Amino acid sequence: MPNSRTDTASSQRPPLRLGIAGLGTVGTGVMRLLAENAALIERRAGRAVTVTAVSARDAKRDRGIHLTGIAFESDMTALAARDDVDCVVELVGGTDGPALALAQATLGAGKALVTANKAMIAHHGMDLARISDGGDIPLKFEAAVAGGIPVIKALREGASANRIMRVYGILNGTCNFILTKMEAEGRGFEDVLAEAQAKGFAEADPAFDVDGIDAAHKLSILAAMCFGTQLDFDGVATHGIRDIRAEDIREATALGYRVRLIGMAEQGEAGLTQSVGPCLVHEDHPLGYVPGSLNAVVAEGNFVGRLFFEGAGAGDGPTASAVVADIIDVARDEYGPAFAMPVDQLQAMSRADAGAGTGKRYVRLLVEDRTGVLAEIAIAMRDAGVSVESFIQRGSEDGRALIALVTHACSGDAVADAMRRLSGSSALVGPPMVMPILDL
Amino acid sequence: MPNSRTDTASSQRPPLRLGIAGLGTVGTGVMRLLAENAALIERRAGRAVTVTAVSARDAKRDRGIHLTGIAFESDMTALAARDDVDCVVELVGGTDGPALALAQATLGAGKALVTANKAMIAHHGMDLARISDGGDIPLKFEAAVAGGIPVIKALREGASANRIMRVYGILNGTCNFILTKMEAEGRGFEDVLAEAQAKGFAEADPAFDVDGIDAAHKLSILAAMCFGTQLDFDGVATHGIRDIRAEDIREATALGYRVRLIGMAEQGEAGLTQSVGPCLVHEDHPLGYVPGSLNAVVAEGNFVGRLFFEGAGAGDGPTASAVVADIIDVARDEYGPAFAMPVDQLQAMSRADAGAGTGKRYVRLLVEDRTGVLAEIAIAMRDAGVSVESFIQRGSEDGRALIALVTHACSGDAVADAMRRLSGSSALVGPPMVMPILDL
Repeated sequence: MPNSRTDTASSQRPPLRLGIAGLGTVGTGVMRLLAENAALIERRAGRAVTVTAVSARDAKRDRGIHLTGIAFESDMTALAARDDVDCVVELVGGTDGPALALAQATLGAGKALVTANKAMIAHHGMDLARISDGGDIPLKFEAAVAGGIPVIKALREGASANRIMRVYGILNGTCNFILTKMEAEGRGFEDVLAEAQAKGFAEADPAFDVDGIDAAHKLSILAAMCFGTQLDFDGVATHGIRDIRAEDIREATALGYRVRLIGMAEQGEAGLTQSVGPCLVHEDHPLGYVPGSLNAVVAEGNFVGRLFFEGAGAGDGPTASAVVADIIDVARDEYGPAFAMPVDQLQAMSRADAGAGTGKRYVRLLVEDRTGVLAEIAIAMRDAGVSVESFIQRGSEDGRALIALVTHACSGDAVADAMRRLSGSSALVGPPMVMPILDL
Repeated sequence: MPNSRTDTASSQRPPLRLGIAGLGTVGTGVMRLLAENAALIERRAGRAVTVTAVSARDAKRDRGIHLTGIAFESDMTALAARDDVDCVVELVGGTDGPALALAQATLGAGKALVTANKAMIAHHGMDLARISDGGDIPLKFEAAVAGGIPVIKALREGASANRIMRVYGILNGTCNFILTKMEAEGRGFEDVLAEAQAKGFAEADPAFDVDGIDAAHKLSILAAMCFGTQLDFDGVATHGIRDIRAEDIREATALGYRVRLIGMAEQGEAGLTQSVGPCLVHEDHPLGYVPGSLNAVVAEGNFVGRLFFEGAGAGDGPTASAVVADIIDVARDEYGPAFAMPVDQLQAMSRADAGAGTGKRYVRLLVEDRTGVLAEIAIAMRDAGVSVESFIQRGSEDGRALIALVTHACSGDAVADAMRRLSGSSALVGPPMVMPILDL
């Protein structure tokens, strides 16, 4: 058996020396974790892990952590070139710009890169992995997907024997916080969002979260990792939760469902399907129980069956936990190719026609409460070939009515056709809301 | 960065050659998995994985798998000595005997060992890990804990940055199947057990499962892995589910709880606490939702917070998934010390006094329905210093009554004292049932 490591002789291996870029919440959390759990980390890593250099916008700010004896670089790209740095930890964020420049410089210098940057990996993961593969240089990003849940580790290594048919889950804690609060308190989206912003649970500009982009970044990374396919962020059909009304959640509950923002990737004969959007999840499905800002991931393997993972998807502690787990792997020289297999072996998959996928769907319409509207809707559904399983109309005092219906299994294209037939109607007040019903 | 592997050149590495001991359900499942997912496994392992030799009781039995070209050893220990075997996969089971002899011979020959044998690891894990450490020989046992859930991987590597304070879960699928069925159908233990046996979900001799021994094996392995402590199977206070009555489940449900067999390990200043036994779990706790024969593990880390993992805990497919994940790690030379750090660094922990732990407890008594019994119970509780939070007495037509009470937080010793005071009473019909209430 080849023996390339020296586990039992940690004192004989030099420390792994880190350069940390970014001392925001996560960077500070990583520094705290490395200090607080130092002895444990050394036992698990088989060598000491030290921070030799950091980079941050403001050198002077008090972050409640010790920076004495640690070099400070105002230009973070300089971390990659330092002789006393073996591994760069990128916690700056951003799709391109300085983070990407640092990542390229680090791998280009043959040094390990650990990052929490989902946007950068989703957009440039294949290019970075190619550099990583070429020089057998560690490129690790556990913290980029589902925060503290070691889902990359569990799926790329723990479930590595399986062909994964489907991976899906709750990948954005802000959206889950908003949706579960809307559900518990019967409140509207804008109202709950404002409270989440006031409390710091949502960003001042919430677009990244509530429009599904953050979840789409994570989903595209998960899909590549699970399926052994080329990363295809642009192939994620992405919808957010802005148009969900309190009434939608009330109707869904009455039907035995929860409304959740679900990222879903499936590999099938027709190609790769990737989507992020609000779905109805049965109240008995494990994803229906995921409370507050937690994240959860389900993966279905051809031998293991269904695996379910739940934990904190964000926050300084959980994210630092994932970052330092990667650092320990680097310290142990146990990392493997960034996407579980070399990039040149990842399959280029065609995109499946998302509209062709069949399933039940929830449709909600706000309409004028007058004669003939019901017939108009019924005719549009019939002419589009959409069969209706259940139908509820609720009048209100302002002369409008809410219609919530559930279709029998049909294609997304058919429902879209029905909506198109209705789109010219003067009866409609605002656009309809269509959500797939998860039958898993 | 040291480069000891050749990920991108799988064709340059010779195949990993397996010798498989045991061709029962799991062994056959492993053979099927290796054949069905061969291309995928080669891509992930960076080399081919082949089976060169097997050993089983009956060479001739038709198992629906191809054994052509594979050597057959009637004495399984011979697998360890074969020149064409790099890694032995032990799927025979049993604490000692042939399985242990094979394990020792394999590691002694400097060859990798992958096993699903929880009893052997729980009893001899430290000794085997010492041989593994000494020669840097892979010793892997993902399948020994929670079947297909990659919980060893997720905790030893994914959560490796954390000090784990507590790890607990549902570790025996047979018990969870029985308890959830008793709950759903209002039936008694013996009745449901008999059905489970008839359907093959429970063994003819169910003691190993229903008396908690199987769960205790797994718990002791988890605890050592999570806490970095010496494995201490004998330190697990183990109780089974035989004495749970349909009435207990009914009363627990009325109180908002589920009855589950919980394995729990905690590391505290008083030492290590390890227990397996039926507990009341709040209906909103993730463990309260775990259906049927699934397993689930919760771990609480000082940075990551609470992680929850759920999946199939047994069965040929899920177990094979875990076994082959280990094999892939071996093929990649990514394994590390068996218990996440060298055995000589695992701490020897004293056992905490289990009776000193405080918490609410459920107590059920079957009594003669006559004057004075209530006073007798109330006095025993008072004299033992146990304060009662809720109390229900239900009469029945046969002159007996069932009393179910919940204590305020108190020590297990105090409740045991109260039960001792009652034990001589002629009012009691059969022994009392005491279950901790999980408040997590």
